[in-house]
Amino acid sequence: MIYFLSDYSLGAHPQVLKALEESNFEHTDGYGHDHFSDECEALIRKMIGKEDAKVYFFVGGTQANVITITSMLRPYEGVITPRTGHIYVHETGGIEMHGNRVFAAETDDGKLTPAAIEKMMLLHEDEHTVIPRAVSITNPTENGGVYRLEELEELRKCCDKNGLYLYMDGARLGTALTWPGTNVTIRDIARLCDAFYIGGTKLGALFGEAMVLCNPEFDRDFRYIMKRGGGHLAKGRLISVQMKALLEGEENSLYFEIAKRENEKAIRISTEITKLGYKLWLPHETNQVFVIVDNKKIEELQKNFMFYVWTPFDETSSVIRLVANWNTKDEEIDALLEALK
Amino acid sequence: MIYFLSDYSLGAHPQVLKALEESNFEHTDGYGHDHFSDECEALIRKMIGKEDAKVYFFVGGTQANVITITSMLRPYEGVITPRTGHIYVHETGGIEMHGNRVFAAETDDGKLTPAAIEKMMLLHEDEHTVIPRAVSITNPTENGGVYRLEELEELRKCCDKNGLYLYMDGARLGTALTWPGTNVTIRDIARLCDAFYIGGTKLGALFGEAMVLCNPEFDRDFRYIMKRGGGHLAKGRLISVQMKALLEGEENSLYFEIAKRENEKAIRISTEITKLGYKLWLPHETNQVFVIVDNKKIEELQKNFMFYVWTPFDETSSVIRLVANWNTKDEEIDALLEALK
Amino acid sequence: MIYFLSDYSLGAHPQVLKALEESNFEHTDGYGHDHFSDECEALIRKMIGKEDAKVYFFVGGTQANVITITSMLRPYEGVITPRTGHIYVHETGGIEMHGNRVFAAETDDGKLTPAAIEKMMLLHEDEHTVIPRAVSITNPTENGGVYRLEELEELRKCCDKNGLYLYMDGARLGTALTWPGTNVTIRDIARLCDAFYIGGTKLGALFGEAMVLCNPEFDRDFRYIMKRGGGHLAKGRLISVQMKALLEGEENSLYFEIAKRENEKAIRISTEITKLGYKLWLPHETNQVFVIVDNKKIEELQKNFMFYVWTPFDETSSVIRLVANWNTKDEEIDALLEALK
Amino acid sequence: MIYFLSDYSLGAHPQVLKALEESNFEHTDGYGHDHFSDECEALIRKMIGKEDAKVYFFVGGTQANVITITSMLRPYEGVITPRTGHIYVHETGGIEMHGNRVFAAETDDGKLTPAAIEKMMLLHEDEHTVIPRAVSITNPTENGGVYRLEELEELRKCCDKNGLYLYMDGARLGTALTWPGTNVTIRDIARLCDAFYIGGTKLGALFGEAMVLCNPEFDRDFRYIMKRGGGHLAKGRLISVQMKALLEGEENSLYFEIAKRENEKAIRISTEITKLGYKLWLPHETNQVFVIVDNKKIEELQKNFMFYVWTPFDETSSVIRLVANWNTKDEEIDALLEALK
Repeated sequence: MIYFLSDYSLGAHPQVLKALEESNFEHTDGYGHDHFSDECEALIRKMIGKEDAKVYFFVGGTQANVITITSMLRPYEGVITPRTGHIYVHETGGIEMHGNRVFAAETDDGKLTPAAIEKMMLLHEDEHTVIPRAVSITNPTENGGVYRLEELEELRKCCDKNGLYLYMDGARLGTALTWPGTNVTIRDIARLCDAFYIGGTKLGALFGEAMVLCNPEFDRDFRYIMKRGGGHLAKGRLISVQMKALLEGEENSLYFEIAKRENEKAIRISTEITKLGYKLWLPHETNQVFVIVDNKKIEELQKNFMFYVWTPFDETSSVIRLVANWNTKDEEIDALLEALK
Repeated sequence: MIYFLSDYSLGAHPQVLKALEESNFEHTDGYGHDHFSDECEALIRKMIGKEDAKVYFFVGGTQANVITITSMLRPYEGVITPRTGHIYVHETGGIEMHGNRVFAAETDDGKLTPAAIEKMMLLHEDEHTVIPRAVSITNPTENGGVYRLEELEELRKCCDKNGLYLYMDGARLGTALTWPGTNVTIRDIARLCDAFYIGGTKLGALFGEAMVLCNPEFDRDFRYIMKRGGGHLAKGRLISVQMKALLEGEENSLYFEIAKRENEKAIRISTEITKLGYKLWLPHETNQVFVIVDNKKIEELQKNFMFYVWTPFDETSSVIRLVANWNTKDEEIDALLEALK
Repeated sequence: MIYFLSDYSLGAHPQVLKALEESNFEHTDGYGHDHFSDECEALIRKMIGKEDAKVYFFVGGTQANVITITSMLRPYEGVITPRTGHIYVHETGGIEMHGNRVFAAETDDGKLTPAAIEKMMLLHEDEHTVIPRAVSITNPTENGGVYRLEELEELRKCCDKNGLYLYMDGARLGTALTWPGTNVTIRDIARLCDAFYIGGTKLGALFGEAMVLCNPEFDRDFRYIMKRGGGHLAKGRLISVQMKALLEGEENSLYFEIAKRENEKAIRISTEITKLGYKLWLPHETNQVFVIVDNKKIEELQKNFMFYVWTPFDETSSVIRLVANWNTKDEEIDALLEALK
Repeated sequence: MIYFLSDYSLGAHPQVLKALEESNFEHTDGYGHDHFSDECEALIRKMIGKEDAKVYFFVGGTQANVITITSMLRPYEGVITPRTGHIYVHETGGIEMHGNRVFAAETDDGKLTPAAIEKMMLLHEDEHTVIPRAVSITNPTENGGVYRLEELEELRKCCDKNGLYLYMDGARLGTALTWPGTNVTIRDIARLCDAFYIGGTKLGALFGEAMVLCNPEFDRDFRYIMKRGGGHLAKGRLISVQMKALLEGEENSLYFEIAKRENEKAIRISTEITKLGYKLWLPHETNQVFVIVDNKKIEELQKNFMFYVWTPFDETSSVIRLVANWNTKDEEIDALLEALK
């Protein structure tokens, strides 16, 4: 069985595993009070050009999103996200568990626009209504789309106008930052967002996401908030050891290398699949490719390949999602293309 | 200043006040453990033709909705309501306070349809997604519309098919049941809903709503759930004394008399306003009339009349809401019509 | 059946009912946006000598406590109360519903001491532990005890030292303020507490408690917090109309008159019962009298009198609670004393 | 610096790391839907002699406790634990985050007794009070104590009598099961508890705890509950791969070998320290040793050794905690003993 199912279907990049092994016998304090975490924080601060940023390490994306976003909200406040957003669709109501509302805004392609935000703002009237207080976007989006700098600048303006915090779910951030067409740097993101995370799980780590609090306002008792939400790992350094191994070298880091590789493999898939006559559901960006395939063909493919059937397209065909991971091999793509012929 | 603002801008019907006075010096146990509450429960059971129904008394509608609906849900479950629904729009996230999601379904006129429910059901995939488990409708809707029997039957079928409970917010239930065009009885509602409430606050009580649990499944520790949610009144009988005064006599009760009167006054408003050349925003039903009025005219009206400007209609006009209450007088309507000329 | 069960077993003082009747036909905005509420706030500000205090009106004590206390806490913070405190014992986990902890501190008689607070503070170490952030006391306590000025001053000092807010549940506040032995005025309470409420339900109102936020810090979006917690009444003025009727005249107000009367009747009970040879469980203060009675005698009494059997005392006797209400009559006490002979 | 700080201050046992490496390049589905998790479940079922038990894998103990315990409770219910219990003392109110109460019961040594449970049960009267519904014990306790079979049997009886579920936090379960004086097997635990977990983090894993639901009642939508609480790891197999490596071989497994080793090293510490004239705070059991040391000596030790100062003992001395981990070496103990001379 060949996996195009997700970017978390296999273990870690060997260099990440090596870093874990090398630090294995060292003793440190637990829960992120260790020199690896301090060093990784320093590394990230330098990388984003923000010396007062705070970095916290989460095991996974759902925890990172839920705990950080709700830490931005008072109980009667909510967060706006596209109706395709992970916090609305795929976190089983984690935001609501903390008592806050998710406002699901309209979107065509998975991106949030100022117009969609403004429309949700109308829901706020007075004390009888939830106050939208934060905006959560995913970059790249759940459909693989990359926000352009002008789009992020407009979102920031809209947030400032409406008293909203801007949060970015960066589960696959590396693939957005290294996408050939992008004009956004991680420094732009740190400048425009109140908080965002650099996702490791889908880019070569066993697990782990580095949450960057750009707005010092949110660094109030954040460790308490993490702990209460089940967001601390006893051997907390396990995450920073991995993230450090990934991020060291900044532009030349393993993280960007893996991201580029994932993008390149996905480009090969989308390019060659198109040549075979298949149509893409959405213009392809980053390491997820959404292709329209005949339902019978899908059944045939499922004998040898693992992938998600994303959504029905019409009566006879559906959209499938093909994801390139850090170790996707050309032979695997060859086999897929052969099967698709 | 003449009030068409709401049906809760003044006190209680004199007969309701009288009932409070007459029972004032009697001693009873607190928190609803009293003979008035028992008698009122018996009265409602008879009225709805359901001897095993349980009746609980709430001070107001938001509490009634939030506590009862969330009592139907496990933590990872949610409730579907039209995007105009009170629990989505005007309860400041009370459902989310209990950790549950409100799914805001599309609606044209404030009514929920099986098609809109089915669309929300698609959001449920597996353990990563919130399970829709209840449907909440308001009857009459927030826009005044009355559900017809065939609509309720279809909603029930849709709920059964999808494993959903059906809840009805009856803040103005009397006006729906006595609306000239209705074909729905309170027995139909008790047969089709898992729970609903008979609203008193907007139909002549000082305050109070009688929650009817038709589905015995929800009568598990309901008093605990009420108490935890702040839903018990120390002198609990105050609500049942009022509801009893309103409901005694069933079809000939004060409740239905008030409801009919509210509808009649509203009919007079909508009929004569239309004759004056004004257009209604929606076909008029029950005691709320939504009229499109020029913005300048609105400003003028506001000098002498209280009403809500509901929503902008176009660049020069808006929708205003005119509500008839239990004591709306013809002279007040005369004055309004005169001012609208 | 003669009731010494509670101070909420009957309706309202006739003057309170009269105030409701007199305002019944007047129209106002809902949810506390009305002139009665403004006037009652002004009255209370004058009475407590604090022009910047904010006053909000709640239907009952549990809501008042839960919503106000949790509004003082961040999610990982908790409130310290004596183990006999209403929020720990008799609110079905309302504080926990909002996600906060109640720390149950040791107490002999129902009063909280600085020493007991200091002991609970030791539970706070670091991010793994809940931070105590508020102290909640009831005055008079659930056992009827009245805090003396020096005790309140010491509690305030202890709170300041430990970064704790001080909240007072004043369900029966009037009886504490008018207790013969007291040296505390309502101005002292407003000076020493961050928030407290003047309870109406147990002192002649149908229902209603006036929450006084002395610390302006807590007046941030308080209306939203109330609404979310189900704490707004549609016809909000019903509470302020009653509280105004009770509080007008300050020291000479109906409120203090009722409080004094409740105390006097209780004093008669405790004095004469002692003369009959019965022993009090605790030194008697305010309108609750706790008496040790033989279990057989209790059974006999229960045929004609309603009261709580509070707690077993020894193998053959129990503590019963006798409460004087705003309408307790000497004939009722006579009957009780006769039965106790 | 030599670490006796905790059993989570270093990485994983080499065999555990090896298992992660060996499975690293294999692709599987995420979130625990993989053959490693199935195999580990089968292994544990066999080990505990309960074919219908369900096993779920958590990253850490706080998540495991909070999510599982709250899944046993309805919103108005609470859990009883000793006042030293992890869920009361060291989880920053995680249980309360889910809206439930933790009842802190009295304990002398960290163990819970039927008498202490019965005392807490008295708090439950009626709808105004939280219902205790579960009991949570830690074995070994936070003070290192091991429950004996007769103690567990008595607790189970008490739970059955009072309608309570019995939950065991097994963060260091291996050290309890292999403690020389124990008469409890893992089969006893599975027979007596409704749920318990086999802790990996403190016994040689990088991270991970295997939650065993012995009572099939709790396997309702447990995956949803885990997800909502942030309790799923994307590469879920990482935990089962480790737990499988630890548990394979049952009595002869690596898990028991590590546990025995931790106990042995701790026995060496407690024995030789006593010979040096130091006094233990509590009779020593399992891998935590609590010793009373002069405060000046503690300062001196802190230059070269890491450990927790647990609690003040008297004015001049304190209790320190010395923990043996899976890799504690005799040289390290030698150095400690030398320093203590």
